[in-house]
This record gives sequence, C-alpha cells and structure tokens, in this order.
Amino acid sequence: MAAKAFISELKDYIGQDVTISGWLYNKTGKGKLLFLMIRDGTGIVQAVLFKNNVEEDVFEKCEHLPQESSLHITGHVVEDKRAKGGCELQVKEIQVVHVAEEYPITPKEHGTEFLMDHRHLWLRSNKQHAIIKIRHEIIKSCRDYFDNLGFTLLDAPIFTPAACEGTTNLFEVNYFDEKAYLTQSGQLYMEPGAMAFGKVYCFGPTFRAEKSKTRRHLTEFWMVEPEVAFCDLNQNMDLAEGLVSYIVERVLENKRDELETLERDISALEKVKKPFPRIDYDEAAKILKEAGSEFVFGDDFGGGDETIISDKFDSPVMVTHYPANVKAFYMKNDPQRPDRALCVDMLAPEGYGEIIGGGQREDDYETLVQKIKKHDLPMDSFKWYLDVRRYGSVPHGGFGLGIERTVSWLCGRSHVRETIPYPRMLYRLYP
Amino acid sequence: MAAKAFISELKDYIGQDVTISGWLYNKTGKGKLLFLMIRDGTGIVQAVLFKNNVEEDVFEKCEHLPQESSLHITGHVVEDKRAKGGCELQVKEIQVVHVAEEYPITPKEHGTEFLMDHRHLWLRSNKQHAIIKIRHEIIKSCRDYFDNLGFTLLDAPIFTPAACEGTTNLFEVNYFDEKAYLTQSGQLYMEPGAMAFGKVYCFGPTFRAEKSKTRRHLTEFWMVEPEVAFCDLNQNMDLAEGLVSYIVERVLENKRDELETLERDISALEKVKKPFPRIDYDEAAKILKEAGSEFVFGDDFGGGDETIISDKFDSPVMVTHYPANVKAFYMKNDPQRPDRALCVDMLAPEGYGEIIGGGQREDDYETLVQKIKKHDLPMDSFKWYLDVRRYGSVPHGGFGLGIERTVSWLCGRSHVRETIPYPRMLYRLYP
Repeated sequence: MAAKAFISELKDYIGQDVTISGWLYNKTGKGKLLFLMIRDGTGIVQAVLFKNNVEEDVFEKCEHLPQESSLHITGHVVEDKRAKGGCELQVKEIQVVHVAEEYPITPKEHGTEFLMDHRHLWLRSNKQHAIIKIRHEIIKSCRDYFDNLGFTLLDAPIFTPAACEGTTNLFEVNYFDEKAYLTQSGQLYMEPGAMAFGKVYCFGPTFRAEKSKTRRHLTEFWMVEPEVAFCDLNQNMDLAEGLVSYIVERVLENKRDELETLERDISALEKVKKPFPRIDYDEAAKILKEAGSEFVFGDDFGGGDETIISDKFDSPVMVTHYPANVKAFYMKNDPQRPDRALCVDMLAPEGYGEIIGGGQREDDYETLVQKIKKHDLPMDSFKWYLDVRRYGSVPHGGFGLGIERTVSWLCGRSHVRETIPYPRMLYRLYP
Repeated sequence: MAAKAFISELKDYIGQDVTISGWLYNKTGKGKLLFLMIRDGTGIVQAVLFKNNVEEDVFEKCEHLPQESSLHITGHVVEDKRAKGGCELQVKEIQVVHVAEEYPITPKEHGTEFLMDHRHLWLRSNKQHAIIKIRHEIIKSCRDYFDNLGFTLLDAPIFTPAACEGTTNLFEVNYFDEKAYLTQSGQLYMEPGAMAFGKVYCFGPTFRAEKSKTRRHLTEFWMVEPEVAFCDLNQNMDLAEGLVSYIVERVLENKRDELETLERDISALEKVKKPFPRIDYDEAAKILKEAGSEFVFGDDFGGGDETIISDKFDSPVMVTHYPANVKAFYMKNDPQRPDRALCVDMLAPEGYGEIIGGGQREDDYETLVQKIKKHDLPMDSFKWYLDVRRYGSVPHGGFGLGIERTVSWLCGRSHVRETIPYPRMLYRLYP
C-alpha cells in the first residue's frame, strides 16, 4: 500500500508511490490528459491523469468533477523543477470522497461583501491562505520573543467592571445582575502582574465598540501587551524595537513563499533594521508643518498625519512625548516637561499607521489619585490598581502591539478585514 | 559598577558583585545580622546584611523596612549549597525605591474571599506564582504540540450571532443594534478552517453564563480546539492522547520546582503514559454499577461518576460512544450503532474530571439539516456551517481541551479559581 503523505512532504517521496487527500483546486485538460491541481492545506500539487492509466469511468468522472470536490489520489511522485513544490504526481488511482456543488467563488472578480459573506470558503483561496499563515508566524514570533526573554504569560480577564481608557466605545454585557464590559486592554491587569513576576505579557482579544467604519478598525482584535517592572521609557522602546524587528526577521525567513503569493514588496520589509528612528512629538509636528499638513500643534495625529511622518523612514518610527492631555490617565508625565507624557507610539512604514502604543506608567500613588479624579473615573473600581503604588511601587512600563495592523503591514493589505480569520466590524457578525 | 542581574541568573555570578532589583519578601534578624529574603519574579534569594559593612542608617532603615518594599541591592554573590538558587548575596549597598504600606497578606491564614479580593497582590505569593508558571508551560506546550505537527493557528471569533450548543448559558451583548453572544466554543469556525488548511486550532477565551457555583466552573475560561480534515474518531483520540502526554512530560521536565512548591504528588503525574485506556460508555456504566453508583444508564455522567471511572486508571481515560441524545447536534452518529455518537471525553485521573470533549463531526449535509431542525436551532445562522458539507465534505473531527481544568489537575488544586490570573465567576468580577 502506498504511504499517506501531505503535499508539503512530497519532495521527500520522489520515485515512490503515495496517497494524498485533498480538494480539487483547479483543472485543465488536453485530449487524453487531465491536469488536476490538488490542495490539502499544506500545499498545492499538479496531479496528471493519463486516460490509458486508469479505469475508464475514473477518467470520465474526473473530467466533470467540480471545483472543491474532495478526493484521495494515489500516484507516483516525479521530480518537476518548474513546479512550486518541485514535483508532480502521476495518478494511478482516484477515490472521490464528495462531489462538490457548484462552488460560489470562481476565478472571476467578486465584490468584497460577497467574499466577506463567504469568508468560511474564501479562506481556501491562495492569498487568504497566505495571510493567515503569516498571521500565525507573527503571533508565534511574539510569544517566542517574550518567552525567550523570560516573560511570564499572564492572561488578562475579558470581563471587566470598569473602563481602562474611559467609558466610551465599550461593549456592555449583562453579567447576571451586574453590568460588565468587554476589555479594551489588559494593561491595568498586567501592572500588578509585573510586580509579581517582574516581566509579564498577555495575549488575547480586545474589543472596541467604535461606530467608525475605517480600513483600520475591527470591533474585535488581538493584542499582545508586555509590562515590565523597573523599566523606563527608553528600556520600553528597546523592547518594542526588539519585538518588531524580530517579527519582521521571522516572517522574512519562514514565510517568503506567502509574501510572494501576496505580491508583497519584500525589499521594503528587508529595509526594516534596528535601531529604529526615535523622534519626539515636536519633531513629528515639524515634519507635518514642512509637509503642509493642517495638523494643529497640541492635537493627536490623524491617520493622514501618521502616513506623512512614517514616509520619512524605512523602519518603523517611534514618536515620544505627546502632550499629556491627549494620552491616557495612567501615563507618567515627564518630570522635565510636566505637560508631556513619557509615552511612545510606533508607526509602521509605508502608511500602515500605528502598530504600538505604550509608555511609562505613573508610579506615584497621590499623583495617580489626582489623575483618576481629574478624568472623572470611578475611584472604587481602581482601588486594586492603586495598590500597585502602595506596596513596593517601582518605575514600570509596557506597550500593546496590535496584531491585525501588524499583519496588514507585513502582508501589504490596505484593509484589516483580511488579517483575521473571521472579522467582526460594525455591520459584520457573520459568518 | 556592578552588573545588573536577575535572581535566577545569580549562580552565574558567584564570586562577583551584582545589583538586583526586587521586593522584600521576608526578613529575620540576629544582632548585627539581617537576613532579607528578596524576590524579583524570577526567584528568591537571601541577602545578608552585616551591620559593620554598610552605613549605619542603611542598617536601621532595613531593620524596619515593611514587607513588599521595593529596593535595589548591590552585593557579592557567594555559593550556598543549602539555598534553593545555590547562592546568597552579601550586601554592600541598598537603595530603597519605595517603602511599602502595611501589606495585607501576611503569613497567617486568610479566608478565600479575602485572598480573591486581593488577587492582584496574592499573585506575589509563592504558590500562586508557581501555578501561573505551570499554566504558562501548559499553554506553551499546547501551542508547540500543534505547531510542530503542522497545524495552522486560526483564531475563532468571540462575537457570534448564534449558539453553538443551544441558547442557554450564553452571555448576550448589545452589538450596535443587533444581539450578539459571546462564544462558547470555536469549533464551528474551525471546521471550515480544517477544509482550508487541513489541520487547524484556535486558542482563546470562551464563556458560559452558568449560574452554578462549583469548583470546576468559571464564566470565562480558555480552550484550545484542534480540528482535522480526513480524521476519524480513532485518529482524533491519538491526537488528544499525544497532546496530554506531551503537556505532562513538559511540565515534569521544566516545572519540577513549581510542582514541589505546590507539594504536588509528582509520582502520580509520572504514571501518566501513552497509550491511555479507551473504554466505551457501556464499560464506563459497568464500572459505575459495580461501584454502587446511582447512575442511570442513558444519562450523561455527573462529577462524582467521573471520579469513580477515572479512579480505575493511572492515566487519563478516554470514554467513547455516549448515547447520541446527551451529545451536541454536530456529532456524527456511529453507523454501527446509530443511537450512539462518535464522541470522546477524556477524564483526568485523581478525580479532576473531564479535561477534553470532542469527536467526529456529522459530515453529511442532509443528516445535519435534520439534526439542526430536531434541535430547533435557527437554520439561517447555520447556513455557512452547512456549506462545509456542500463543497468537498470529508470525515473530520477535533476536540477542546480546557486549560483551567488541566492546570487544576497538574497543580493538584481542587478549585479552578486559582488556575487563572484573574478568575471570573458568578459573584466575582473584581479585581
């Protein structure tokens, strides 16, 4: 009996008979020859069917087999240097598992809404497949990076009693007889964690009920959020820069085929190198002024502004020292310039926008109490959070990296909806 | 200047001066000597302070320094074979970062509610620290196991339009002007994924609004859920057995210190070996009858029943072929015994209950349509799910492993509330 194999392994079976199981991706024919493109999730291989080599009804059945029908194919693996996997399969036997109905996704152009309604099938397509593979590599790289540095994984809760950055844009849940909100960030929970474990990270879904329909927003998105005790703004930036350059390296090393499938400009990614440029808010504002932007000094940057700033650099740029009043209450103010926050945003190159936001946290109890009052947040809900400043407070900081925006940048996709298996947006809950 | 080091690295610095940064965990004294136990998240070391070696005010300050105060200590590392890390620190200089207020958690016994209210601080304690470290190892093992087998990570959505296993126990969310529910399982979304990638898994939080207050239930818990195309019940069991034995191996190899801290019976874990026993529902029922249980044939097993069954074995036991009507609608019925499901539950030894539930899925379109009707589920919401059976349907299966129950078993903790950093339960949303 022929060995069972995955398509990605076929090059190890050249000269042997194997059985593969998969789906019919595409089909062409020429007289007594049928060329079946078979996919099994690990790769695609051409299976060549010669009429004289198989039972007559098998050839006829395959001639009319619809796209995405499932089948087992036994055949002889032969080298073919022109093929992507380096080989093709000369078919000896075919067993059809299921004859597919007419497949809705065809080589013709489909509208985005149609493809999103068929997301569960669209995932079978070449490019969507490549994006998810790259997403996997990015997520694995994040975890490996922190694990290798001795961080402890500390999953943050999804149900929270209060808002982390204000009460707007929150999804409310009926939690038995109480109200709960879905988390926007695990950061507040990571701070006590950093005091227990020194270095921690959480990695999970986060939620924003934003009514805006933009190419950069999902209602449900994944973030990795490290938090480190005894860490100032500069050490925090070193960590962020290390993470992002590690991710880019790993994707370039292990997912080059997928980048090519996506026709990504690989040379742009190869230019991403440590050290990343570090500029402060004032320098960023100067870039905008010189470019003739309508940006008003003192405001946060808009998406267009971010593109202008990041276009000046090949690597992601880290912008620090924003005005404290455009940043969250927990940010520590710069002792040298008290109206500025010890914060950092990292902007991806090529106009892909902010991928990281973070900074040093306020570590003084009294100052933080005043900030919570000033922001009109419920003091009771932050009692536990304030405890971090009562029992061995230390300088500490961290950041959040948005996974979908990172995938979007590395894959060169302009819209984040393709960067997650089942995107959730303002008008999108299905499938 | 002395090198900066983490406590876990000190054995590499024997004979040298280093600076560590951490918190005062405990303190004893004797005349001109002070013994400070310092923790920094990576370990604990004894720092010995000899009055004549430091400035007078430093010694006095440390004599009265409260527990959990934060500090930098510079000292000389000397070998000490009796110490856990193999060394101690002879203090030359101490810089106090923050003098803690009186710490609420003391060596005396505290009630569970008190500790849960102070979960953010309780995480600093020895045993809680060990549990979270083991949790991290378990999660990493799961991911490594599937990644090494060529699985693709496919994150499932949290917001779902319909229920996976019926509409009870769901958390409802106001999703703009629609209703959405928090996911109970990613499985339905993994099935189309398996058709696209061959082998997939999701790993994320799942939710059950159960009003029951038991030691095995959280409202928010993490699951890893693999799904495989061209996979029958037996192959599914091989995969589950492989995963669990890999997790146990890794924890025994890398987290022995933590198991000892928890006073876990390590010999019981060392007995867990492949192949795991596989029995069907009828054999399990026989065990219960012989033990004099009040179990009624045809029902699902209760927690007490599971303990009786699992007590017969050293390794986790896999129970198959439950009556179809106690299992979910998507389970495939056994063609040989149509009233039985091709399902498997894995019960952990020592009474830790079900850690895995899974099986082979119904792969015939018409049969599944009938089942959805019979269960009175909204057909429209399952249209996309049914598509898996229309376009190249194949035998497929998978399972879900509950992380918190696995942590509870391996750590020997009777209640799941200690197995997750910030547990969420019926009356617990804080901190």
